[in-house]
Amino acid sequence: MSDNSFKRPLRWGLVGGGQGAFIGAVHRIAARLDGQYVMVAGALSSDPQRARASGAELGLAPDRCYADYREMARAEAARPDGIEVVSIATPNHLHHPVACAFIDAGIHVLCDKPLTTTLADALDLRERVKTRGVRFGLTHNYSAYPLVRAARAMVAAGELGEIRIVQVEYTQDWLATPLEATGHVIGHKQASWRTDPALNGPAGALGDIGTHAAQLAEFISGMAPAELSADVTTFVAGRRVDDHIQVQLRYASGARGLLWASQVACGEENHLRIRIYGTQAAIHWDQEQPNELTFHPAGQPARRLTRGMAGLPSVAAEATRIPTGHPEGYLEAFAQLYRDFAQDVRDAQAGLITPARVPGLDDGVRSMAFVEAVLRSGAANAAWTAL
Amino acid sequence: MSDNSFKRPLRWGLVGGGQGAFIGAVHRIAARLDGQYVMVAGALSSDPQRARASGAELGLAPDRCYADYREMARAEAARPDGIEVVSIATPNHLHHPVACAFIDAGIHVLCDKPLTTTLADALDLRERVKTRGVRFGLTHNYSAYPLVRAARAMVAAGELGEIRIVQVEYTQDWLATPLEATGHVIGHKQASWRTDPALNGPAGALGDIGTHAAQLAEFISGMAPAELSADVTTFVAGRRVDDHIQVQLRYASGARGLLWASQVACGEENHLRIRIYGTQAAIHWDQEQPNELTFHPAGQPARRLTRGMAGLPSVAAEATRIPTGHPEGYLEAFAQLYRDFAQDVRDAQAGLITPARVPGLDDGVRSMAFVEAVLRSGAANAAWTAL
Amino acid sequence: MSDNSFKRPLRWGLVGGGQGAFIGAVHRIAARLDGQYVMVAGALSSDPQRARASGAELGLAPDRCYADYREMARAEAARPDGIEVVSIATPNHLHHPVACAFIDAGIHVLCDKPLTTTLADALDLRERVKTRGVRFGLTHNYSAYPLVRAARAMVAAGELGEIRIVQVEYTQDWLATPLEATGHVIGHKQASWRTDPALNGPAGALGDIGTHAAQLAEFISGMAPAELSADVTTFVAGRRVDDHIQVQLRYASGARGLLWASQVACGEENHLRIRIYGTQAAIHWDQEQPNELTFHPAGQPARRLTRGMAGLPSVAAEATRIPTGHPEGYLEAFAQLYRDFAQDVRDAQAGLITPARVPGLDDGVRSMAFVEAVLRSGAANAAWTAL
Amino acid sequence: MSDNSFKRPLRWGLVGGGQGAFIGAVHRIAARLDGQYVMVAGALSSDPQRARASGAELGLAPDRCYADYREMARAEAARPDGIEVVSIATPNHLHHPVACAFIDAGIHVLCDKPLTTTLADALDLRERVKTRGVRFGLTHNYSAYPLVRAARAMVAAGELGEIRIVQVEYTQDWLATPLEATGHVIGHKQASWRTDPALNGPAGALGDIGTHAAQLAEFISGMAPAELSADVTTFVAGRRVDDHIQVQLRYASGARGLLWASQVACGEENHLRIRIYGTQAAIHWDQEQPNELTFHPAGQPARRLTRGMAGLPSVAAEATRIPTGHPEGYLEAFAQLYRDFAQDVRDAQAGLITPARVPGLDDGVRSMAFVEAVLRSGAANAAWTAL
Repeated sequence: MSDNSFKRPLRWGLVGGGQGAFIGAVHRIAARLDGQYVMVAGALSSDPQRARASGAELGLAPDRCYADYREMARAEAARPDGIEVVSIATPNHLHHPVACAFIDAGIHVLCDKPLTTTLADALDLRERVKTRGVRFGLTHNYSAYPLVRAARAMVAAGELGEIRIVQVEYTQDWLATPLEATGHVIGHKQASWRTDPALNGPAGALGDIGTHAAQLAEFISGMAPAELSADVTTFVAGRRVDDHIQVQLRYASGARGLLWASQVACGEENHLRIRIYGTQAAIHWDQEQPNELTFHPAGQPARRLTRGMAGLPSVAAEATRIPTGHPEGYLEAFAQLYRDFAQDVRDAQAGLITPARVPGLDDGVRSMAFVEAVLRSGAANAAWTAL
Repeated sequence: MSDNSFKRPLRWGLVGGGQGAFIGAVHRIAARLDGQYVMVAGALSSDPQRARASGAELGLAPDRCYADYREMARAEAARPDGIEVVSIATPNHLHHPVACAFIDAGIHVLCDKPLTTTLADALDLRERVKTRGVRFGLTHNYSAYPLVRAARAMVAAGELGEIRIVQVEYTQDWLATPLEATGHVIGHKQASWRTDPALNGPAGALGDIGTHAAQLAEFISGMAPAELSADVTTFVAGRRVDDHIQVQLRYASGARGLLWASQVACGEENHLRIRIYGTQAAIHWDQEQPNELTFHPAGQPARRLTRGMAGLPSVAAEATRIPTGHPEGYLEAFAQLYRDFAQDVRDAQAGLITPARVPGLDDGVRSMAFVEAVLRSGAANAAWTAL
Repeated sequence: MSDNSFKRPLRWGLVGGGQGAFIGAVHRIAARLDGQYVMVAGALSSDPQRARASGAELGLAPDRCYADYREMARAEAARPDGIEVVSIATPNHLHHPVACAFIDAGIHVLCDKPLTTTLADALDLRERVKTRGVRFGLTHNYSAYPLVRAARAMVAAGELGEIRIVQVEYTQDWLATPLEATGHVIGHKQASWRTDPALNGPAGALGDIGTHAAQLAEFISGMAPAELSADVTTFVAGRRVDDHIQVQLRYASGARGLLWASQVACGEENHLRIRIYGTQAAIHWDQEQPNELTFHPAGQPARRLTRGMAGLPSVAAEATRIPTGHPEGYLEAFAQLYRDFAQDVRDAQAGLITPARVPGLDDGVRSMAFVEAVLRSGAANAAWTAL
Repeated sequence: MSDNSFKRPLRWGLVGGGQGAFIGAVHRIAARLDGQYVMVAGALSSDPQRARASGAELGLAPDRCYADYREMARAEAARPDGIEVVSIATPNHLHHPVACAFIDAGIHVLCDKPLTTTLADALDLRERVKTRGVRFGLTHNYSAYPLVRAARAMVAAGELGEIRIVQVEYTQDWLATPLEATGHVIGHKQASWRTDPALNGPAGALGDIGTHAAQLAEFISGMAPAELSADVTTFVAGRRVDDHIQVQLRYASGARGLLWASQVACGEENHLRIRIYGTQAAIHWDQEQPNELTFHPAGQPARRLTRGMAGLPSVAAEATRIPTGHPEGYLEAFAQLYRDFAQDVRDAQAGLITPARVPGLDDGVRSMAFVEAVLRSGAANAAWTAL
């Protein structure tokens, strides 16, 4: 961080993520962690009373606790001290309309993934943002881990040689039982909307975690698959979306890959793992042990690279706060997205056109194309489907 | 081991596995380890001089060092002190003719996998053995690890609930470069025959290690896939067999699986790993750390089971020689096959008809069916293929 | 967190931890992470220009960037909007005078460990705080990790039986070479003051990390040693303080322990590890993998407990922000101290007398007694020394 | 193994290690594994009936099943086909008289550690062997692991720089309860003799596993401590020998060390671990994962060395049977001692005076000196005691 001059925190608002929402709390911690944002407004619930209560808990002024995101976009855009950035942490079906409201109001947007529930909506957002000139970031937070960025840089520098094999998997077990059937109970709210196609879109595990896996693989390898063959499964009886997917990948270079994602894998917590093998070396990374990356050069001992150590690519050092041996985790990586997006926004405010520091609409569009291709292939008995 | 009475070591011979052959040395150590065999004859090379030299190194009498396995079968069957058991450690294309020679001579056979190079040959052997009444074992040695047997018993006892997901992979890197092109040099002999369809059969990594992975998955899960979709790849230019396969599996129960095997995965040594997830729990096992098995019951802490610990299924204890914390490995598991097969042979000698203690012709036939299905699917752009 | 009502962030200042100081950045992130503090003042350097520059970088008003902590204590105490809490992140020799200044001004103090450079100063602080009635916390941050708190609760609940053995070690390698000799260079400033007895006190690795190890062992085991025998070593030629200590511990119960701490252990980053063995079970925890705790009940498989999982003691859940599988780390634990101390301060502001939620002066006094006992024992050729 | 000519197996006998003895079975497997020995005689029990029964189980001729080791030494020495090597696997108090009987009969001896129960006996054996000219090996089996030998070679080659710190520990839990009190039951026989000073000698955990730890540390580091300070503890009430020791070590070079050994450490199986830190690098090895050795060069990523990989010191390759990724374990290391000792014996038979390939009387003498120093220091409240 060469520039140490004080940066006024950006005025920030949040849509969704009210009381009891895991991801809302993550957004707020991530926004606070590096001191680059100050929360001043929110549409934390569509129920006015809950919206006010949730906002009050967070110290928001009553007149900036909105029950309607459209009203929030309008009102904030009109205030001289209105928000400069909004984050969207709603169920998926609202990403598109909420994003539209703020983009149209000229407010920069940081949106949860998956970007939308359809590819068409994703393409629409991309057009809209181009027209309106705001910055748009997508919370593919795993790509903000320092060692993931190191891995990407190492691949780009040719340290693996030519890539042959991409293996990525993302496993959880929280939907191993029909949790959504008890969804009225507080705490299973998330299971309910995530398995309801109307709120979540048609992709279950695929949309929730498969997209993370796909984005991570592409982020590190620098390659998107050319075609895929997907087996899309729902194990839990009565569930309305997939809870387990297995996908064969083929790349234009001839490389091969496997991606699987499951929310019914007993004993798995939040296990996103990637292994990439090239002609000269391989790298392995595991989100549950994010402070290490192993590098496996052909014919030599494997090496354990640790976050913060000397000799890593500079992109890793820049995303690191504290020395090696002092573990950083999920919140720091999420906060890194926020820190990077703040810089994107400041560039925009200064009239600078700079490359985005965080995943954005291109990633989101490719992600939705991946989702639709997997669903299409799955419906066609795993027929090869171009991306 | 309830019966402690002394068992005269079985008279044993070896075909293949002469000077410099890795697997020949493994067979000899495994045969010796538990004291159940004494080596008295061998056809260690088809070159008479090398056959004699290899035999002399092992202390064989000169007249029992054969250059021709047919001659060996004939001569040994004719001797009053002839071999009772032969092991076959030749390149794959010889498994069938060598096995025929010894089966027909009434000698029990322990044969390296893959059983044959074609399904037809495998079926032929099965018929022949039925007719002739000898015992026939196949060296699917990984299924002889104590904790693999424990895993199988746990699955059979319902400790995982209903199985949903089978993930098995077997990775190596020794063929990441075109080693066979330098095959005349001593030491690359193995690379040469293993990549030569005439000697090895049409399946490369598939036959060599994919069959191990498939057998292990079936052994533990107790289920064979109903259909598969395979992507069969050759990464190294000029190579005449596959060196990387990725296979989607579907089971009759609705369970799903992935099997991948690669001999070009940089940094991988002999990495056979399996994870099986059921409705109630999962198990993970890794051949490179064979003395532990992790058990992941839903909603409870993962448990580390170690070879030799109290409370494991009895099949594990029976395959264990020394206490927990004193690691056993590959050779002990291989020796376990030998120990178990000795008991099979003694049963046959006593006129007892007992269930085989080691994998045999049914496994071999299913394995060859798997190989042919993968090759067929691969040739048809990964079309679903019934097994 | 049962009480969700909004808590106005506490007005907070920092002494020490200016530009380039690792621990200053940690304090600021920790203070921000849970939104319980707002930084409004600082004495970030004794050099007026640097103090102002450092403050400006952080957005402090110029008149609240102090070069003299005494002036800061006086001025802030006099303001109606003065700081309510100060954190002390200076070299050790200043802990006592800085703390005195703020305590005497009636400002709550969160102070880096080791508390002071002498036991006498530590006792003085304890008296002073009693008299003045402020809250005083000490940054024994490792005791704020959720699984460390779980471990303590498990020991207290008798899950280990009677404790027999305490093994704790804290290893680093950053002082394996005479880094302080190049101390004028930016970045080695820390090596310089930490090896200068005038700034750091007489205890090197002992004071810096040995005290953490001792506190952690006591925190989890619930026992302080009765006597110790210490070998105190300086490996790097010319170094003026110890860089490696090894201590035998005896407890009144008859339990035994070993504590060692080293800053010259090549390849070690920030490796604080503890293992406690009782008559019924053992627990192991490793700061570099802080999201897991292993529990080893006698005669049963080891169990892997993970931060956030169901069934952990409630003290662990209360110190956890995000679900299991989403790793938290060093900053979250540090922030937990801040969050807990904020509650302590609010209790004090409400006139409530509540037990401290964070380590405090009793810990600090015991820590300094430990330091002095180790130094005494070391000087007496490791003679047994009572605590 | 450059010399491939056939080596006639040595005629071998065993004293001790009858029915139910763990270590007897280990000796027999180790002797068989590489085909260098054939068992022809034994004194497997002092009870004539049990001696015969145990021998019969192993296929020994009835007249070579002895109940008296003196008789065995006499009779075997007198036979033209008498044993050339004897192994001693009795309780410790018999090591000295049994060894004397065979040494005096001119038979080569491979003896379990600890060598004797007193230093005087150890010195006596050393003299006797010198006089009689037989080979004498000691089963410090852990030093026969290939990666332990690699570690020793790396230290000797200066890859660690100057050694500063030696950390070695050996933990088990099988004596965490008073198992010996139930010693009449079959299976607890070992607990009974190992805790009976008359049979075991005065050193409990110290003699059984502490000596292994000390030998391993010396074997790898190439240094013996100059003085030590030991805390010797007995945790289990009524136990007559120590079950937990903690020892501070000082080396002449100024290096420091800690050695601890415990047989009451709940959850530990056979956990022998060593870490050695030098000025330039460190190495870590763990007996329960013996196929890997980690190397930690200062300022560079840690490297994972695996048994069998290219680039290891040749002493490791020579002690390796199968390729990397195919785990070897405890039995292979034990067998390595047997293989090496066979070569020592053949050298002697050929009239060659060669350096011993396995630990021997010098190791045994130093080990007994270590035991006596620890016991002396322990009795003197951990006073520093020269070695």
